[in-house]
Amino acid sequence: MLIRPERSASLKALFRPESVAVIGASSNILRFGGRPIDYMKRAGFEGAIYPVNPTRDVIQGLRAYPTLSAIGDSIDCALVSVPTDETVAAIRDCAEAGVKAAIVFSAGFAENGPAGRALQDEMVAIARTSGMRLLGPNCMGAFHAGHRFYGTFTVTFEDQIPPPGNVGLVSQSGGYGGYVMRHAAMREIGVAAWATTGNEADIDAGELMLHLAGDDDVEVIVTYLEGLRNGAAFVEGLAAAKAAGKPVVAMKVGRTEEGRVAAASHTASLTGEDAIYDAVFEEFGVIRASTSRELLDMTYALSRGRRPRGDRVGVVSISGGVGVQICDYVADAGLSLGVSPDALRQELTSLVPAASTRNPIDMTGLVSMNHDLMEKTMDATLASGAFDAVVVFLGICGMTPSMAEPLRDVIIRAQERHPEALVLLSVTAPEDEMPGYSRGGVLAFEDPADAIAALKALWRAPTPGQRAALMAPGPAVALPEGAGRLDEAKAKALLAGLGLRPPREERAADAAGAAAAAERIGGAVALKIVSPDIAHKTEAGGVALRLSGTDAVRAAAEAMLPRVAQAAPEARLDGFLVSEMVTDGAEMLLGLTRDPIFGPMVTVGAGGTLVELLKDTAVARAPVTEAAAKAMILSLRTAPLLTGWRGSPALDVDALARAIAALSSAFAATPRLATIEVNPVVVRAQGLVALDAVIETSLGAKEEEHHERR
Amino acid sequence: MLIRPERSASLKALFRPESVAVIGASSNILRFGGRPIDYMKRAGFEGAIYPVNPTRDVIQGLRAYPTLSAIGDSIDCALVSVPTDETVAAIRDCAEAGVKAAIVFSAGFAENGPAGRALQDEMVAIARTSGMRLLGPNCMGAFHAGHRFYGTFTVTFEDQIPPPGNVGLVSQSGGYGGYVMRHAAMREIGVAAWATTGNEADIDAGELMLHLAGDDDVEVIVTYLEGLRNGAAFVEGLAAAKAAGKPVVAMKVGRTEEGRVAAASHTASLTGEDAIYDAVFEEFGVIRASTSRELLDMTYALSRGRRPRGDRVGVVSISGGVGVQICDYVADAGLSLGVSPDALRQELTSLVPAASTRNPIDMTGLVSMNHDLMEKTMDATLASGAFDAVVVFLGICGMTPSMAEPLRDVIIRAQERHPEALVLLSVTAPEDEMPGYSRGGVLAFEDPADAIAALKALWRAPTPGQRAALMAPGPAVALPEGAGRLDEAKAKALLAGLGLRPPREERAADAAGAAAAAERIGGAVALKIVSPDIAHKTEAGGVALRLSGTDAVRAAAEAMLPRVAQAAPEARLDGFLVSEMVTDGAEMLLGLTRDPIFGPMVTVGAGGTLVELLKDTAVARAPVTEAAAKAMILSLRTAPLLTGWRGSPALDVDALARAIAALSSAFAATPRLATIEVNPVVVRAQGLVALDAVIETSLGAKEEEHHERR
Repeated sequence: MLIRPERSASLKALFRPESVAVIGASSNILRFGGRPIDYMKRAGFEGAIYPVNPTRDVIQGLRAYPTLSAIGDSIDCALVSVPTDETVAAIRDCAEAGVKAAIVFSAGFAENGPAGRALQDEMVAIARTSGMRLLGPNCMGAFHAGHRFYGTFTVTFEDQIPPPGNVGLVSQSGGYGGYVMRHAAMREIGVAAWATTGNEADIDAGELMLHLAGDDDVEVIVTYLEGLRNGAAFVEGLAAAKAAGKPVVAMKVGRTEEGRVAAASHTASLTGEDAIYDAVFEEFGVIRASTSRELLDMTYALSRGRRPRGDRVGVVSISGGVGVQICDYVADAGLSLGVSPDALRQELTSLVPAASTRNPIDMTGLVSMNHDLMEKTMDATLASGAFDAVVVFLGICGMTPSMAEPLRDVIIRAQERHPEALVLLSVTAPEDEMPGYSRGGVLAFEDPADAIAALKALWRAPTPGQRAALMAPGPAVALPEGAGRLDEAKAKALLAGLGLRPPREERAADAAGAAAAAERIGGAVALKIVSPDIAHKTEAGGVALRLSGTDAVRAAAEAMLPRVAQAAPEARLDGFLVSEMVTDGAEMLLGLTRDPIFGPMVTVGAGGTLVELLKDTAVARAPVTEAAAKAMILSLRTAPLLTGWRGSPALDVDALARAIAALSSAFAATPRLATIEVNPVVVRAQGLVALDAVIETSLGAKEEEHHERR
Repeated sequence: MLIRPERSASLKALFRPESVAVIGASSNILRFGGRPIDYMKRAGFEGAIYPVNPTRDVIQGLRAYPTLSAIGDSIDCALVSVPTDETVAAIRDCAEAGVKAAIVFSAGFAENGPAGRALQDEMVAIARTSGMRLLGPNCMGAFHAGHRFYGTFTVTFEDQIPPPGNVGLVSQSGGYGGYVMRHAAMREIGVAAWATTGNEADIDAGELMLHLAGDDDVEVIVTYLEGLRNGAAFVEGLAAAKAAGKPVVAMKVGRTEEGRVAAASHTASLTGEDAIYDAVFEEFGVIRASTSRELLDMTYALSRGRRPRGDRVGVVSISGGVGVQICDYVADAGLSLGVSPDALRQELTSLVPAASTRNPIDMTGLVSMNHDLMEKTMDATLASGAFDAVVVFLGICGMTPSMAEPLRDVIIRAQERHPEALVLLSVTAPEDEMPGYSRGGVLAFEDPADAIAALKALWRAPTPGQRAALMAPGPAVALPEGAGRLDEAKAKALLAGLGLRPPREERAADAAGAAAAAERIGGAVALKIVSPDIAHKTEAGGVALRLSGTDAVRAAAEAMLPRVAQAAPEARLDGFLVSEMVTDGAEMLLGLTRDPIFGPMVTVGAGGTLVELLKDTAVARAPVTEAAAKAMILSLRTAPLLTGWRGSPALDVDALARAIAALSSAFAATPRLATIEVNPVVVRAQGLVALDAVIETSLGAKEEEHHERR
């Protein structure tokens, strides 16, 4: 399943075919085999359309062919809309005819159980042999608006075929793909290309995103995901989109346990842990939407192509209360409120003496009745240079045309005169008048909360040129043969080689030896009796903690021997273990695991029971750079405990970041490392001590394959 | 400012006047003094309308009067719409004429600075003298739809006056009040009564809510708040609404620091700490909205008057992907997913063999094209008894009338046949067709996320009969004269009297005495030297911790004396302090403070630096019952640390709850207690120990007044 460039290029036939065959073509433009022909004719598709149907000579005015082979032309793309039991034969015909890509509408395959899966596997095998690509089965197809190709039966185009735009949409759900398409059309969000992936027997969402990242017609990519099987392809798609400066908006359903269970019953796909999706989205700057409205608002805003230069928001309202509300949304979004300069405040006061001229700027209902005042307000506010975006609340003025149109026009003109700051409008207007507010660069929304959510997306989306720093895995570490848990010595050695030293400790034969060991170790030590016969050392009086100085250690050892001998008279005593006491610093947890979808992942979190309760962790794909590791650490809610909280000393975050980078790098490079958990690792003012760790290895065949794919 | 019943009853003249004078009446129906007359005439107000204007004989077809006194009839309500500098005189005329309530539209008062505030105070003084009530100034007025009284100049009624409904709306912002009114009309949410409070010189939002709680036309109360000055009146309003079983939806802006600063600049009112508002809302079951859409969706759903009997949600979709999405929203909302019984699953499979019949139920696109199948699906699902609410996703079917209308009608009919479960629809339809989906008890929304948010509100809102358990404050505690910090002995005695004992400790003259004291105290002890001359006992060797048994205590005391004598040869030594060591249990914090708006508040939180960082606290108005205190404790994120986390012992939560109840009760009853902070109090397996506490007292005059008002 390694994705090679030529495979991605092979998707050209899926979006921009020169010739299209429709197998199972219908004269009824409401049937699956009829709609695509109707849409392509109406859209003015310039390639050849060949209906295939053994019972008709002419379909929708086009010559029909009894079989694919009767066409006698090369076919780039075939749409397969025949009953389930005829699909494999149709795919075989396509392969034999040299079709480059087949879109299989038909359902009844893997989603229906083992028998269907066998049929699906057979189709894939046929396609692989000929090099043909497959979209579906059980999908709604694909279209490319610029190429006027409509290989889909979505009902969305029944009324009209909307003009092309710059959005590329990849949906794992056909129904949801149509839903978004319809809403996009209603809001005049132009779509360039669209694909629904159905069962993903061959082409999956990741590969489609990779392809769209390279399509010049596409500037924003939107994806709807239920669950991925091939994380590597998805990551490749995201990396390509980021490199191309194309923002990605994603809705991933199955966020919650309830949703995950539901997703498992809906498709055959795995739904991964949501936090891991979040980590991957974060890595590539993907903007996550949790509702359709968010998805559409963000897509709308991003598709207009303008970004704020900074995060300073200005708020202009005709109602003070709503201005305060908008400030709440600005704070929620992590944006900042700009500060009205004095000159602006004076100018606004001269326009409306009763105005509140601090930000939020409340120009009172007066400006709603006087568009000249609104124009001057906008000019002054935008020209002040104090704001990177200005949100204007017009409220229900939009419902009164005599008020609304002049206000709208002066705001649009002001935006055109002052393009350096973005203008976002919040207005209640009849549905069909909303697009009229969206001109001259102005973005229009009904609810101000939606405007701010969209602005956040504009501000957070990666800009062209921001490349994802993909870390190469470091050198592999040597492991003993076989699968299982590494013994203590090997685990310690492995971690020490990566900058995570164990606590210092030494064996000593007698009290004098223990004192000498303590001196070499330095600082406070713990003293423990060594005996193969004593399971519970503390109960037997065989543990002394926090001993400082050689005298204390010698005295404790001398007192310990008779005490233990009395408590466990038959135990063999083999001297002492002297260990460094680690009582300072903060306990953290480091974990490395292999996710079935996204491969090696690294987790850092605060250790200890309390924080386990709070689930305060950060996770990312491994390997991570030191800088990324440090960002993960600092993203923890309990990070202040490391960086100096209330006068406590700052701890060695850099050493922890180095260890995370080294550990993640070695883990990614060594497929037979199944899991590593260092818990706790103590971060001290200087350096780290790994107090305990578990390292598991596997036989590794599966992991090696996974690793190679990345 | 004590609210007495007769004052609240005096608001009747504000909403249901028999006679209305309009001072500053205008013939221009677009002016402030013209709109109310126009609205009342169009609505068919049955009382007398008396325009007052010295320059006109007839206004809008009604006889006009040069002065109020020229009318010669008694006036229930006067609308005052004159320039700022004529307002005081108009109010004086009203008072002299025996007007019961005046609504002052005019602006330029407290919101404009000290001179305006002086005028406003003068108005209030005049009104108080005559017993007249004042709404405003600087407000948009009020209306009562059932009484057909429209004492408002909101532009909302320019086009039409919507039919009455059962919602009462109280808004501190006139502009926002109009905004909500307009949206309510667009969504066919009927409003019974509406008031905007402006500067709240006399009547405030709380008093209006109290009044509406007693208005039989009002079944749901909606309020928009920027900040309250009189928390007691608000609490009284909420308590009355809860007692009457009228759910309250509140939007309180200024949630964030940014919003608070903005609110302070917008009005003269205090914006209280948001967590305290949340606590008060929680106490009375108020549903908080953070966007206008939420506010409207929740109000819409509540105004229909149907509630789910439980929280089991069923999801019926025509697209599996959206079904999964809806499950995410259900989980987010804290509702539960119902389980399809086997019989239902069989029945649905017999209707659509390819259906997913677990919940979410995906009936595939087939049902969207076959309303008969949809009808059978709905009947089977509703009749199963497995769901208290069923969310049906129709998606863009609503945009195709031929599909939409039959689907809508069968769903509505199914709901009528099976009223025991609530049906919520999510459908994309032309704006003006949305109300058509809202019949027969069905609730309709565009986005499924909105449907679930509204369902959550329906489920969470208090039902009639749930009374707020208002705690009476307990007996006051005796305090020394004067303001300041209580000394240690008094503080300890006060807390001990309320069930919070200090650690056990005893003075001892010598080593033998220390050993005897340790035996009386029991368990491990700490031993400290007592000396007026030693500030840093640890450095001087004057502290020994975790001593168990009399021998260890005696030995430690004997070793300590020469050590300290050597370290501090000139210090006077006065024996030892032997204290109980508290090393078990969990550290918590208890705080009692007086909020300037809501009075005595009690806070409980986990103690210690880590949790201070996480701000894990719960707050409520004091006093609280033991049961409420326990709920507060259990609401903490770190509550599992108290109730037994990972095998750790369960701690004495009941003792902590008892202490919170006792402390909050004494605090509320003793106005001179300014603050109490017990930090930490250690909760052990049995009982509590207050390790440290600070208690501040005040002279108390202000607090006494506040207390009396509650």
